[in-house]
Amino acid sequence: MDKFMKAAIEEAKKGFLEGGIPIGSILVRNGEIIGRGHNMRIQKNDPLAHAEIICIRNAGRIGTYSDTTLYSTLMPCYLCAGAVVQFGIKKVIVGEAENFKGASEFMKEHGIEVINLNDSECREMMGKFIQKNTDIWYEDIGK
Amino acid sequence: MDKFMKAAIEEAKKGFLEGGIPIGSILVRNGEIIGRGHNMRIQKNDPLAHAEIICIRNAGRIGTYSDTTLYSTLMPCYLCAGAVVQFGIKKVIVGEAENFKGASEFMKEHGIEVINLNDSECREMMGKFIQKNTDIWYEDIGK
Repeated sequence: MDKFMKAAIEEAKKGFLEGGIPIGSILVRNGEIIGRGHNMRIQKNDPLAHAEIICIRNAGRIGTYSDTTLYSTLMPCYLCAGAVVQFGIKKVIVGEAENFKGASEFMKEHGIEVINLNDSECREMMGKFIQKNTDIWYEDIGK
Repeated sequence: MDKFMKAAIEEAKKGFLEGGIPIGSILVRNGEIIGRGHNMRIQKNDPLAHAEIICIRNAGRIGTYSDTTLYSTLMPCYLCAGAVVQFGIKKVIVGEAENFKGASEFMKEHGIEVINLNDSECREMMGKFIQKNTDIWYEDIGK
């Protein structure tokens, strides 16, 4: 498996062990991880603490994002896709989009390359979580 | 002037006095302010600490957003507009869109009512800041 997706899955698992939603994200530049994060909505009681937001924040003020790739275990929602579009991240690689359709088309419309690895581990991890925690999940996506 | 826009301007001024970018935001439900925030990118060294994001975070986990209105002194960027779309905020009232075009069309495409008050105080506050701090401003919007 892609080593960066593996790192994103590790982040997701960290979040799950903290009692959170298992979504992980990695920001990569020049083949190196420059940011990591996992969803912390429950841990921080913050509706905006999505994995990709935390990951981009953890990378710090890096100036330009045009040479970065964002990895996420799940297709980004509009909030996180909005960050991708605004900051000019050019490539997004996701583990899956079966459990959440997300804002794939919106990113593509803005010229962002979106690659879905359709990874079984990501699918199962998220699928099981949603099945057991449907209310928490729907709150997370603003439903 | 609209009392909520006045409160958003107060937030923007707070941010400016802290050495930050003068953008303020207010979240309103049933005629009451339930969240406040101002841009804290410089103060927190966080590229995602936009006024609207801080404001929505400060409102806490409120469940549904369908009966809320978001005020901002400046037209929201894609990050903040993404939050509006994802969480289902139905109405956005902005002070101005002259200094930054933002993601107005994107929100409208998603059925959000976007009202631009074209307020002179908001326009001047932001215009002066950008003139004196062009680099900081461009970094803020990912340019």
